[in-house]
Amino acid sequence: MLSFENDYSEGAHEKVLQLLMETNMVQESGYGSDSYTQQAIEKIKERLDCPEAEIKFLVGGTQTNQIVITTLLKNYEGVLAADTGHVSTHEAGAIEAGGHKVLTLPHTLGKIDASQVKDYLETYYADPVYQHMVAPGMVYISQPTEYGTLYSLEELTALSAVCREYEIPLYMDGARLGYGLMSKENDVALVDIAQLCDVFYIGATKIGALCGEALVFTKKNMPKHFLSSIKQHGGLLAKGRLLGVQFLALFSDNLYFDISQNAIDMAELLKTGFKEKGYKTLIDSPTNQQFFIIDNAKLEELSEKVKFSFWEKYDDQHSVVRFATSWATTEEAVAELLEMI
Amino acid sequence: MLSFENDYSEGAHEKVLQLLMETNMVQESGYGSDSYTQQAIEKIKERLDCPEAEIKFLVGGTQTNQIVITTLLKNYEGVLAADTGHVSTHEAGAIEAGGHKVLTLPHTLGKIDASQVKDYLETYYADPVYQHMVAPGMVYISQPTEYGTLYSLEELTALSAVCREYEIPLYMDGARLGYGLMSKENDVALVDIAQLCDVFYIGATKIGALCGEALVFTKKNMPKHFLSSIKQHGGLLAKGRLLGVQFLALFSDNLYFDISQNAIDMAELLKTGFKEKGYKTLIDSPTNQQFFIIDNAKLEELSEKVKFSFWEKYDDQHSVVRFATSWATTEEAVAELLEMI
Amino acid sequence: MLSFENDYSEGAHEKVLQLLMETNMVQESGYGSDSYTQQAIEKIKERLDCPEAEIKFLVGGTQTNQIVITTLLKNYEGVLAADTGHVSTHEAGAIEAGGHKVLTLPHTLGKIDASQVKDYLETYYADPVYQHMVAPGMVYISQPTEYGTLYSLEELTALSAVCREYEIPLYMDGARLGYGLMSKENDVALVDIAQLCDVFYIGATKIGALCGEALVFTKKNMPKHFLSSIKQHGGLLAKGRLLGVQFLALFSDNLYFDISQNAIDMAELLKTGFKEKGYKTLIDSPTNQQFFIIDNAKLEELSEKVKFSFWEKYDDQHSVVRFATSWATTEEAVAELLEMI
Amino acid sequence: MLSFENDYSEGAHEKVLQLLMETNMVQESGYGSDSYTQQAIEKIKERLDCPEAEIKFLVGGTQTNQIVITTLLKNYEGVLAADTGHVSTHEAGAIEAGGHKVLTLPHTLGKIDASQVKDYLETYYADPVYQHMVAPGMVYISQPTEYGTLYSLEELTALSAVCREYEIPLYMDGARLGYGLMSKENDVALVDIAQLCDVFYIGATKIGALCGEALVFTKKNMPKHFLSSIKQHGGLLAKGRLLGVQFLALFSDNLYFDISQNAIDMAELLKTGFKEKGYKTLIDSPTNQQFFIIDNAKLEELSEKVKFSFWEKYDDQHSVVRFATSWATTEEAVAELLEMI
Repeated sequence: MLSFENDYSEGAHEKVLQLLMETNMVQESGYGSDSYTQQAIEKIKERLDCPEAEIKFLVGGTQTNQIVITTLLKNYEGVLAADTGHVSTHEAGAIEAGGHKVLTLPHTLGKIDASQVKDYLETYYADPVYQHMVAPGMVYISQPTEYGTLYSLEELTALSAVCREYEIPLYMDGARLGYGLMSKENDVALVDIAQLCDVFYIGATKIGALCGEALVFTKKNMPKHFLSSIKQHGGLLAKGRLLGVQFLALFSDNLYFDISQNAIDMAELLKTGFKEKGYKTLIDSPTNQQFFIIDNAKLEELSEKVKFSFWEKYDDQHSVVRFATSWATTEEAVAELLEMI
Repeated sequence: MLSFENDYSEGAHEKVLQLLMETNMVQESGYGSDSYTQQAIEKIKERLDCPEAEIKFLVGGTQTNQIVITTLLKNYEGVLAADTGHVSTHEAGAIEAGGHKVLTLPHTLGKIDASQVKDYLETYYADPVYQHMVAPGMVYISQPTEYGTLYSLEELTALSAVCREYEIPLYMDGARLGYGLMSKENDVALVDIAQLCDVFYIGATKIGALCGEALVFTKKNMPKHFLSSIKQHGGLLAKGRLLGVQFLALFSDNLYFDISQNAIDMAELLKTGFKEKGYKTLIDSPTNQQFFIIDNAKLEELSEKVKFSFWEKYDDQHSVVRFATSWATTEEAVAELLEMI
Repeated sequence: MLSFENDYSEGAHEKVLQLLMETNMVQESGYGSDSYTQQAIEKIKERLDCPEAEIKFLVGGTQTNQIVITTLLKNYEGVLAADTGHVSTHEAGAIEAGGHKVLTLPHTLGKIDASQVKDYLETYYADPVYQHMVAPGMVYISQPTEYGTLYSLEELTALSAVCREYEIPLYMDGARLGYGLMSKENDVALVDIAQLCDVFYIGATKIGALCGEALVFTKKNMPKHFLSSIKQHGGLLAKGRLLGVQFLALFSDNLYFDISQNAIDMAELLKTGFKEKGYKTLIDSPTNQQFFIIDNAKLEELSEKVKFSFWEKYDDQHSVVRFATSWATTEEAVAELLEMI
Repeated sequence: MLSFENDYSEGAHEKVLQLLMETNMVQESGYGSDSYTQQAIEKIKERLDCPEAEIKFLVGGTQTNQIVITTLLKNYEGVLAADTGHVSTHEAGAIEAGGHKVLTLPHTLGKIDASQVKDYLETYYADPVYQHMVAPGMVYISQPTEYGTLYSLEELTALSAVCREYEIPLYMDGARLGYGLMSKENDVALVDIAQLCDVFYIGATKIGALCGEALVFTKKNMPKHFLSSIKQHGGLLAKGRLLGVQFLALFSDNLYFDISQNAIDMAELLKTGFKEKGYKTLIDSPTNQQFFIIDNAKLEELSEKVKFSFWEKYDDQHSVVRFATSWATTEEAVAELLEMI
């Protein structure tokens, strides 16, 4: 059965697998000290135009969020995030399990803005009993957001400025960063992110890899003994090469960006097709996640032929559902889907 | 340069990679709900002759230990382990980060025995202020141990009996389980482990996989919402298939056992060769880790031609070093090494 | 300067101090195994008409909340609470530091209702990826609430029924329970609480003691090794008698209830006085916390003569402030205050 | 029945209770912002001759240890302590519950020395995989130790020097500090401790107070938002005055030191008496805890007339038991005890 359920339904891009094959029997040291990891790091640093960047490869997004937030926050601090942020909702309490509160701000299409953050910080420090409350110690955003939307360069610059003013780090969850970078509406380049964020990650689990996220500290701010922290959180692979090789493939010959472009192209095709057939979007998402309002009867019929994600109830007759394209989506699959609707 | 540094220097066995290739573009659901994971679980259950076994695949050993120990222990409990146990020494505090003390017992060649455990439990409960101390709530052993040694069936049966008497789970860390199972000296079968342990894992990161451990709850004792606990600890792969496919390959056609046998055969060859040249062992290890006492001058010379692990100082002139064979070790490599010494 | 800042501005009721004096040099065992603690427990159990109640005395409210929530929840669970609940806002992240998320529900005058709880539970379990979210594992309410309001017997019964249906405990924070019990509007007796809640505490820090809360498990549901959990959280007093003696005094001769009555009487006097002078209340609180809307200029003047708590901004000219009466408030003090306004 | 079971069998010194009475109805602000707390802090700072000292009052020793260790350590660090240290053995896992490993060193009569600490640090950093192990991030000692012994000025100076060399804090648990300070054998003054330790506490629960420890940061090194950390650990008393008043009494007119002297005098009397009757000591303790080797038959007889603590088995016929004197012990009580033996 055809699936637009998510952007991790297939394995890895063939060039990624191929490099895994080619390098497979070379003996390398463990825990990320292998030569492929080093090469991949260099390629990414070049791409970021950020020589002082410190990079570690981790297996997944929740793990990365947990390690970053737990190691950067002081014990009395929490992380500010949109109430729709992945850390707020879908990580089974990983942040709290690490001892920290997620301090939620109401989202607008998945985003928070600089003034909300500033207000929160000001209100906190103005409160005579502020020490009875959790201190806001970091800002978490996702690019693209859980709603597929994007921060503009202006918005990101403003968020960065507030964080610098209050000396708290700005952290960007880039689980789908490639899909954001290649969106037509995007005006935030990788180099901007390296400038404006204190820490962020470039997601590959959803973009061409079997698993893997590249975590980047941009300001020589990687915590001391960070390898210990990764190990302590169960995130240190014995065969670190698994991640290094994959990122080496993805950051050679523009692969990461080219395959991200495919997801965007397929999403545009899909959106146009749905709109032509009269379907309405919940949000006019510029990235690879597309949200349509569909009649429930139609949905049931559709669900026998294609997989997608239920998002939320719209009204008694309609639901919002998500169709996700990816690096692996083909024109044929989109055409097949458009036939069905 | 030749390496006997550890048993995770190469990638994966070619049949594992091949199955990853073959299944790569099939669309599957995420988080371990894919069909390969299901097939792999069935194959393992058969092999264990334990239809009620509940199995989850996790990425690495520290992660597995942390998740098992944190979810099975009550907050006031700690885990009993040899002072040389991996959880006691080399996990960067992962168990304590999860809130639990490792209660160490003095080891004998990496092992603890039933009487030590019984004594600890009796002494604890006999203390009038036992509630001021951490309650022993689980026993952790590794098979083979960190010294390459093995629990016999008699020893394991006795440990199991004490645990049942005090109603605490017996947990076996099987990071190198295959190498233990195929050792000539071994008399503990997989089915025995499934009978005697409450929970254990079959390690594959060190035996043929890119990454992956198969965690087995043997008595319908997998904690509720265990998927949440995995997620909360950053251990839930979006592409759970990565683990499922690898275990499917390893548990088809006896692969896991055959390649484990190779490591044992190579270790025997290596040990015989060293002994013939007059080297002494620290421990007469029956598995894939071999520990030799070597003159420091010789070691320095050797270290330019081959990688190995420093284990500990023996005396002022000698060190103990470890040579590890693996599923990937060839006769040629062993011969080359024996030439050097 | 006169203070209505809170209900913990003075030391202890004189009868409490007196019993501390009288018993001071009697030698007793530590950690709550003293005879006064035992006597106090018996007196409270009688009052609750709940022979199976298990009672421990703890030092303060945040400590009590943290210990209860951490020991009763499984690691994958969070606690449902009003967004205005003390655990949600003013405990500096104590619940999260214990590893658990506070799952907030929008409050109505500080309260949540059974249908909100039921909806949350149903929605959670209906979600196909519910295991990616924190499981609701307990309901936390405060009586009176942080807004001084009270749950009626009907409301409490309904909450209790939902909790029983989903088999999660209902926990009542009774930091000011005496002031709730003696309110004219109250229809919930201590015996009802013992029936309807699974665990609750009777607060004394704010009602006559130097410090101390009596934590009650009502259904033989005190977790095993609970003394260890108290110790582990730094809550076990060497001189447990300090708490035992105070509760013995408070639960002899109806003292706890009589002095609670005083706070209520003084609050009524105060409210009537304010209203007669034309002040409006934010909430018509039936307990010892009274919230008035006051002109900012007037407030500044007032703040030089009397202490009170700023609550929140009302509009550009007005603020909401809280005046709290207590077991120690005198008619003279209220009269003096009413003179000032 | 007479008790030498411990040094917390009675309530508080009468002057402490008296000041609680006298100040009882004065209205003060909460959470340690009261005037008595301020006065007590000033008195202690004077006594320490350490104007930059930062002082907080906490309720008990385990709580203090947990808060200090959790806030000063980084997440990847553990605390070095004697294997007999209170944090290692009798705090029900409070340190591990805070996420940190206790790294034990073998004790000599309850003490560790500078060379052990230096060795541990050197060995740790020399290990090629040191980041897989818990980093030693603090040294914990107790003065007097759990065996009643004392660090000399020379020993303390050496420990301090190692800690400074490796830039890790030296923390002294002074649960019985007064009893150490007044010992005839002691050559470490309070001012030395303020110089040599980075953080320590002056215990009062066991020396004249109902409860209370004075935590001192000596180098302007109190962590930011420390009040939040106290609150988060359930250690912030609403009526902080309870602790402030008690320390104010104890540090007025030399009271803390005078009553500590009493315990030492009584311990000397007791020890001399035992020795005269032919009893042997396990350790020749110079402080208020005395450890005697006693025939088991005699012990059983004795246990019907006086309370003491079982310490450990000596041989099949003998046990080691502890008799503790305190601020409250009278010459009559000692005489009565000596009659019995």
